[in-house]
Amino acid sequence: MTTSAPNQQPAPTTQGDAPVINVGVLGARGRMGTEVVKAVNDADDLELVAMVDEGDWLFGLADAGTQVVVDFTRPDVVMDNIRFCIDNNIHCVVGTTGFDESRLATIAEWLAPKPEVGVIIAPNFGIGALLLMKFAQEAARFFPSVEVIELHHPNKVDAPSGTAVRTARLIAEARRAAGMPPAPDATSEGLAGARGADVDGVPVHAVRLAGLVAHQEVLMGTSGETLTLRHDSYDRASFMPGVLLAVREIGGRPGLTVGIEHLLGL
Amino acid sequence: MTTSAPNQQPAPTTQGDAPVINVGVLGARGRMGTEVVKAVNDADDLELVAMVDEGDWLFGLADAGTQVVVDFTRPDVVMDNIRFCIDNNIHCVVGTTGFDESRLATIAEWLAPKPEVGVIIAPNFGIGALLLMKFAQEAARFFPSVEVIELHHPNKVDAPSGTAVRTARLIAEARRAAGMPPAPDATSEGLAGARGADVDGVPVHAVRLAGLVAHQEVLMGTSGETLTLRHDSYDRASFMPGVLLAVREIGGRPGLTVGIEHLLGL
Amino acid sequence: MTTSAPNQQPAPTTQGDAPVINVGVLGARGRMGTEVVKAVNDADDLELVAMVDEGDWLFGLADAGTQVVVDFTRPDVVMDNIRFCIDNNIHCVVGTTGFDESRLATIAEWLAPKPEVGVIIAPNFGIGALLLMKFAQEAARFFPSVEVIELHHPNKVDAPSGTAVRTARLIAEARRAAGMPPAPDATSEGLAGARGADVDGVPVHAVRLAGLVAHQEVLMGTSGETLTLRHDSYDRASFMPGVLLAVREIGGRPGLTVGIEHLLGL
Amino acid sequence: MTTSAPNQQPAPTTQGDAPVINVGVLGARGRMGTEVVKAVNDADDLELVAMVDEGDWLFGLADAGTQVVVDFTRPDVVMDNIRFCIDNNIHCVVGTTGFDESRLATIAEWLAPKPEVGVIIAPNFGIGALLLMKFAQEAARFFPSVEVIELHHPNKVDAPSGTAVRTARLIAEARRAAGMPPAPDATSEGLAGARGADVDGVPVHAVRLAGLVAHQEVLMGTSGETLTLRHDSYDRASFMPGVLLAVREIGGRPGLTVGIEHLLGL
Repeated sequence: MTTSAPNQQPAPTTQGDAPVINVGVLGARGRMGTEVVKAVNDADDLELVAMVDEGDWLFGLADAGTQVVVDFTRPDVVMDNIRFCIDNNIHCVVGTTGFDESRLATIAEWLAPKPEVGVIIAPNFGIGALLLMKFAQEAARFFPSVEVIELHHPNKVDAPSGTAVRTARLIAEARRAAGMPPAPDATSEGLAGARGADVDGVPVHAVRLAGLVAHQEVLMGTSGETLTLRHDSYDRASFMPGVLLAVREIGGRPGLTVGIEHLLGL
Repeated sequence: MTTSAPNQQPAPTTQGDAPVINVGVLGARGRMGTEVVKAVNDADDLELVAMVDEGDWLFGLADAGTQVVVDFTRPDVVMDNIRFCIDNNIHCVVGTTGFDESRLATIAEWLAPKPEVGVIIAPNFGIGALLLMKFAQEAARFFPSVEVIELHHPNKVDAPSGTAVRTARLIAEARRAAGMPPAPDATSEGLAGARGADVDGVPVHAVRLAGLVAHQEVLMGTSGETLTLRHDSYDRASFMPGVLLAVREIGGRPGLTVGIEHLLGL
Repeated sequence: MTTSAPNQQPAPTTQGDAPVINVGVLGARGRMGTEVVKAVNDADDLELVAMVDEGDWLFGLADAGTQVVVDFTRPDVVMDNIRFCIDNNIHCVVGTTGFDESRLATIAEWLAPKPEVGVIIAPNFGIGALLLMKFAQEAARFFPSVEVIELHHPNKVDAPSGTAVRTARLIAEARRAAGMPPAPDATSEGLAGARGADVDGVPVHAVRLAGLVAHQEVLMGTSGETLTLRHDSYDRASFMPGVLLAVREIGGRPGLTVGIEHLLGL
Repeated sequence: MTTSAPNQQPAPTTQGDAPVINVGVLGARGRMGTEVVKAVNDADDLELVAMVDEGDWLFGLADAGTQVVVDFTRPDVVMDNIRFCIDNNIHCVVGTTGFDESRLATIAEWLAPKPEVGVIIAPNFGIGALLLMKFAQEAARFFPSVEVIELHHPNKVDAPSGTAVRTARLIAEARRAAGMPPAPDATSEGLAGARGADVDGVPVHAVRLAGLVAHQEVLMGTSGETLTLRHDSYDRASFMPGVLLAVREIGGRPGLTVGIEHLLGL
């Protein structure tokens, strides 16, 4: 019933000239939480002041002088966590899933009387994946042809991946905005499935292969040239640069932010 | 009504120590024939002695001292060409399509009284594509997972490509021979087509993209590692090393040979 | 001594609602010029009104009602061509090489009294290559590691390619602007050359392989993930979309523009 | 001072019809040993009967009825371990490094009076890497051009990797055997290092990138086509299929075997 607080000092410390940010981790013993703890410990400008998991009191967060909380818990507890943080003037970086419009509206209401507090809800902390989506959208109108290939380990239950579907939709939107016709395709015979799933006019192919982790390619083609954007994610550590970016930037970004793409300054 | 015979000398010439092979090209003005003419002209150990196309007499081939004919003509004339060559003791390297069991049996009959003459019928002269198929077969039993991705220009009418289907079948056969179970795949939800076409248990994905020519990848995976075999064909010139290999080897390979994979000495 | 003017109508025609642009090609019989002629002929909104090459009069361009000239000639004649076009109120899209600061200054002077005329000087019309450079610059600050691999046919005399050097320099600049330290690299033993050429701190590797055309990859890495941007150029046709883009946009872009990246609207 | 023997039954058990192999792991608490323990536990046809590490008695191996030992220890103890196993009629699969000709000769001597015992010394258990080397050697003589690119995490101290150097040497040997001239390369100007390290005439390029694990590509090219063989190793688990293969096959392969490529039946 106690908070694991590896560092009890309540006020932000400083290191050299840069102020250190006091970070608390919610869901600290989970798969993602464990990675966050490690990443915060490895960062010179961040101080891990509280690790909280199931059965621990949230009050420890406040007592430990936490300035930013990182939450990788569960949909059924995350709203309580966020409420607590807002009430205690603690910024929240949330990687837990399960947010719909109604939940986001509730959080916005909670934030209204607290103009200095920030909450970032991010479905994907992979900076590489977000950059890939952005570049694919920008390049879309220069290439008549575009297809998406995503490749994952064989334990994945959905095909194509949510990220691939989202990438295809964003590309399709960019093509429509540019008034582009459908991609050329003379296929008139063949086997069902060969040309992939049709996501808003963009073919999406899903490969499932032992050994792989999470990978995605966008292939674009025009006369005599192709452009390929590929993202490879090798382990959960790949989300940490995005988490740390959010931790560092949230102080300057009060209110509700959905998606860390807004923090990339692109 | 005359044969274009750029070089009339009837007997094989020699160059340094290596004997030069006298080559005739049938279908010399076609797309592939033009490439063959160029490739033979560029090879020091081959002499182009006859170029024959529609309307030319076949007799010119014999008069010019042709030792090996390369035939890229049409299914309706190729059998007559082969008959003529066998009768005149000229070896045949045939890239023309349309051979079935019955045609092959006929050729074998014609060859029976001519034990010194060779005929090579090759559906694919791309050495890279043949090596890829062979390696994929050999590697198959070490990798629980395998998928094929082929990528072509958007004017192709069939999907997947014939080569990809053949590659997948050969892999499936190797897996059966090794007693392997189906590849692991937990996919339980998703969009139709995302997991590709099922060719004998091997998923095959077909990408159609402006700018591309003809490309194929075989991806194989096991615990913690993957092996990828990729073949890129950039233009028709890619078939020429296979054609020249056949021209050079046919003298030592009498009788009927189907597929140049047998000449690769693997 | 005459201009090849396949279409003598001097005024812009219209097709449906969109006005057609009258295009003249300078260096029309050269390697690139031939491709431009083909591309313009294939475009519904462009009309090829003049083809000029060595020994032809430039006056034919004006007589034919040319609105935009595409110049793929030689450094020793290109300045005269540009001067003629500016004097005759014809926009210039120039792919000829050999422009230095002094030449650009001269052109700017010529353009001063002609505020409605545009000249675009482009060292590279490959839209894919330009997008790759731009994306690499934007992504640079998120990835501690970055390397460039360029792959070309073995007849290329310089290594690395000019495009790869330029790409590496732009990335290095973006890294400096973001205050990034050198990329991590523990290499302490090995063979000379293994780690590539050092271009402003970015390793650049050059592959020379029979069969290849022109290809470039930028690889970027951070904890647990990598982002790869790849551009494949398969033939000279790959420059045509960039040339046509310039032809279409130059009417709305008077004055001197260097590099079509400014036309991409990114 | 005791052996961890999770299963004390001294005789091989059977499972269905297939006999189960009793396996002991030496260096069971090391990085690789831990993976071996996991892999053996996961295999239905293998029984983990002994886990031995520093400070444990080797006798426990014999007492537990071990049939095959897997040794991932250290160069200074491995020879004693092998001696013990041979004396006790236990087969050895050895992944420990540090074997030279003299050590191999010593082991061969020890094995002489024990014709039924097998020892496999393997510098690399990655089946994918071994297949890549083998395929590269076989394909070498069909492609005038060949280069090797290896890509690793930035903590690696040597460049290029030992595997890349070995791959390049095997390719060079195959090219010599086929009487091939040097690969075409017109490079006459450029930057030092751009064309990679020269390993026996084969250019080898080493990329060091945060996020990567261990990857290798062999690129081969001829007129109009290229063949690319790529191996990606994502974690230590990638060596387990090779280790298990050796454990299963060693019973039928008495004497000294160096390299598991001999077990691949290729």
